Amino acid sequence: MSFNVAVLGFGTVGSGVAEVLSMNRDSIARKTGKDIVLKHILDLRDFPDSPYASLVTHNADEVFGDSELNVAVETIGGARIAYEYTRRALTAGISVVTSNKELVSTHGVELLKLAEEHNCSYLFEAAVGGGIPIIRPLYKCLAANKIIRIAGIVNGTTNYILSKMKEEGISYGDALKQAQDNGFAEANPSADVDGIDAQRKLSILSTIALDGNYIAPDRIRTEGISSLTLDDIKFERKIGCELKLIAYYENRGGLPSVYVAPHYVSSSNLLSSVGGVFNAISVEGNALGESLFYGQGAGMLPTASAVCGDIAEVAVTGGVPSEPRLWKDEGTEIACYDDVEASIVVRADGNLTELSAAFKGYKFRTLGVDAILVESIAHRDIGALVSKVNGAKWLHYLA
Amino acid sequence: MSFNVAVLGFGTVGSGVAEVLSMNRDSIARKTGKDIVLKHILDLRDFPDSPYASLVTHNADEVFGDSELNVAVETIGGARIAYEYTRRALTAGISVVTSNKELVSTHGVELLKLAEEHNCSYLFEAAVGGGIPIIRPLYKCLAANKIIRIAGIVNGTTNYILSKMKEEGISYGDALKQAQDNGFAEANPSADVDGIDAQRKLSILSTIALDGNYIAPDRIRTEGISSLTLDDIKFERKIGCELKLIAYYENRGGLPSVYVAPHYVSSSNLLSSVGGVFNAISVEGNALGESLFYGQGAGMLPTASAVCGDIAEVAVTGGVPSEPRLWKDEGTEIACYDDVEASIVVRADGNLTELSAAFKGYKFRTLGVDAILVESIAHRDIGALVSKVNGAKWLHYLA
Repeated sequence: MSFNVAVLGFGTVGSGVAEVLSMNRDSIARKTGKDIVLKHILDLRDFPDSPYASLVTHNADEVFGDSELNVAVETIGGARIAYEYTRRALTAGISVVTSNKELVSTHGVELLKLAEEHNCSYLFEAAVGGGIPIIRPLYKCLAANKIIRIAGIVNGTTNYILSKMKEEGISYGDALKQAQDNGFAEANPSADVDGIDAQRKLSILSTIALDGNYIAPDRIRTEGISSLTLDDIKFERKIGCELKLIAYYENRGGLPSVYVAPHYVSSSNLLSSVGGVFNAISVEGNALGESLFYGQGAGMLPTASAVCGDIAEVAVTGGVPSEPRLWKDEGTEIACYDDVEASIVVRADGNLTELSAAFKGYKFRTLGVDAILVESIAHRDIGALVSKVNGAKWLHYLA
Repeated sequence: MSFNVAVLGFGTVGSGVAEVLSMNRDSIARKTGKDIVLKHILDLRDFPDSPYASLVTHNADEVFGDSELNVAVETIGGARIAYEYTRRALTAGISVVTSNKELVSTHGVELLKLAEEHNCSYLFEAAVGGGIPIIRPLYKCLAANKIIRIAGIVNGTTNYILSKMKEEGISYGDALKQAQDNGFAEANPSADVDGIDAQRKLSILSTIALDGNYIAPDRIRTEGISSLTLDDIKFERKIGCELKLIAYYENRGGLPSVYVAPHYVSSSNLLSSVGGVFNAISVEGNALGESLFYGQGAGMLPTASAVCGDIAEVAVTGGVPSEPRLWKDEGTEIACYDDVEASIVVRADGNLTELSAAFKGYKFRTLGVDAILVESIAHRDIGALVSKVNGAKWLHYLA
């Protein structure tokens, strides 16, 4: 039985989807009982040299009017045309599969509802962690857990830059330039280096962790990596840590805390070993304890792998999702960032005595001769204490 | 709407299931739309002090004859009574969820068929990796991949023993005794230390990797850890490795190779950082590249977490599995172990010259003054070459 797919947006991920469907066609057919056929490619451009040139159309009506179309793959990106086309497909009862974290994190509530109303699916395994299975395990395998904590390296570009700064002893600016030259960072790198991409992914993860109670990206306090210095990086060695941009969610019964920030990650934590463009997400459930998912967080084929896994799911379910996946936007309360207690590292060259004095009301331990690790302090109290010590600087710490 | 569960066998995992269903009842209800009710506990024993004492019955007819029963949790273990009860439940159209790797690996073909014939599910996320999501990600998230390689630390007991030998510099026998004293090893430790448990789990993983073409456990060449010495452990530091018991599957187009054996794992591989009772499974797909799943491979609540995730799946699907999960026992060909080419480390105190001479036909590099790393050599050729060098010993290597 054939099962027809349209790819909307034939860029990196879209062409990866075509490639994966082609190279693993037999194997996917064995697993799903369906022959997956790429039928349309909707794009503004032509691709005369592509083996799929004959499938390319510029006419959206042709695609969405095709009554034999089973699933649309939205790999356009952004939240404008992608939004319009996704609405159009779902309204026509065509399931949509996407890697578009911006669209899912900003319009997920509405689009999931639209899918349910039209008895089809809106799936986005590829939107977080690229090829790493994380969305489905969170929904399905951890269904019997309350999610207590998520700590993830979810942006490969920033992880690559931090790895480069460390390995080659170069500045943030030089490492960013290398990332751009090697295709790991955009000409305008803001979405990555300012943590926006991580913020969107954390919006999706924390909404799922909260059983669908939506946390909009703009509610997530976010700090990127652009103000990190080579000194910050060099310091990690002194204290047995690695500096990583961490998307952090914690919910131990009070209000959930959700933020993105650079963290010194202890070398005893597996996240510290995740280098280059890899991603990893640690999830703690109240029954499971800690588990960790690691793999390639971006790239054509890994991301396409996740997209095609979702296509296979639509092929076997017929697009009727088995479990309720609705999100609710009812103003879920989250903890005020200023109130959230965090572990931090504060350093000040040769000023250990002053540091210890400034933080004497808190439980802390010294790290070498230049720094202290404060176990738990409210964000609102950090600034004033740090500013008491000449040249002091602080960053988050993850044990 | 209520959804009724019976637990068959109220041991560690069975009582963990009761606890998880109780502590996360609200959260599971939100996710599944069903109120999961523990209705029966079938066991030969009484549990007068248990909060669930009133649910305990010794009468199997009462359980399997209950027309309102939706799912049976088989946590009996072994392949005798567990087999009989699983057959009985599935034949009655009652879905079965289990953590029993022995039963799944020996009778999975028949039991999956029985489930399909009676329009219900036989699910076993908890049978491999305890709480770590691995079975469902392999089936679902990696559906669009050909699985090229699996390398897993899937037995916590042996990993604990190897970690102890290393950390405390004690012999295999002493470390085993500690594991037994601490409840991490059975009085009869054979299933763990001889690799049988890992073999069963690898049987399940490789069968799934082969799209359901069944690889019986007894076809998997298996070597445990009981012959490893403290010298083997001490040597790992010299060569920047950790010694781990690895369940290994590889399929790059020829015949698949499948075996369990101790490996020196390079410190650049995340598997080398997996200590104590933790498990981790690295999976390489032809589209995804490498991904890794890490977490607690055993223990009451983690394992129960996976069991309850499967219960939740039955609750949302009504027991009708969405994708075909039949296994086929049609004598899938696997590579003869003797023919399989592997990377190995060969060491011989102070005999580097002889070692180099013995392996001069092969591509190898020296490791310090005592050992060589041979990149690829057929198992059949190893013995004769190693025996040429006085005192030489070899073990597998994983980069």
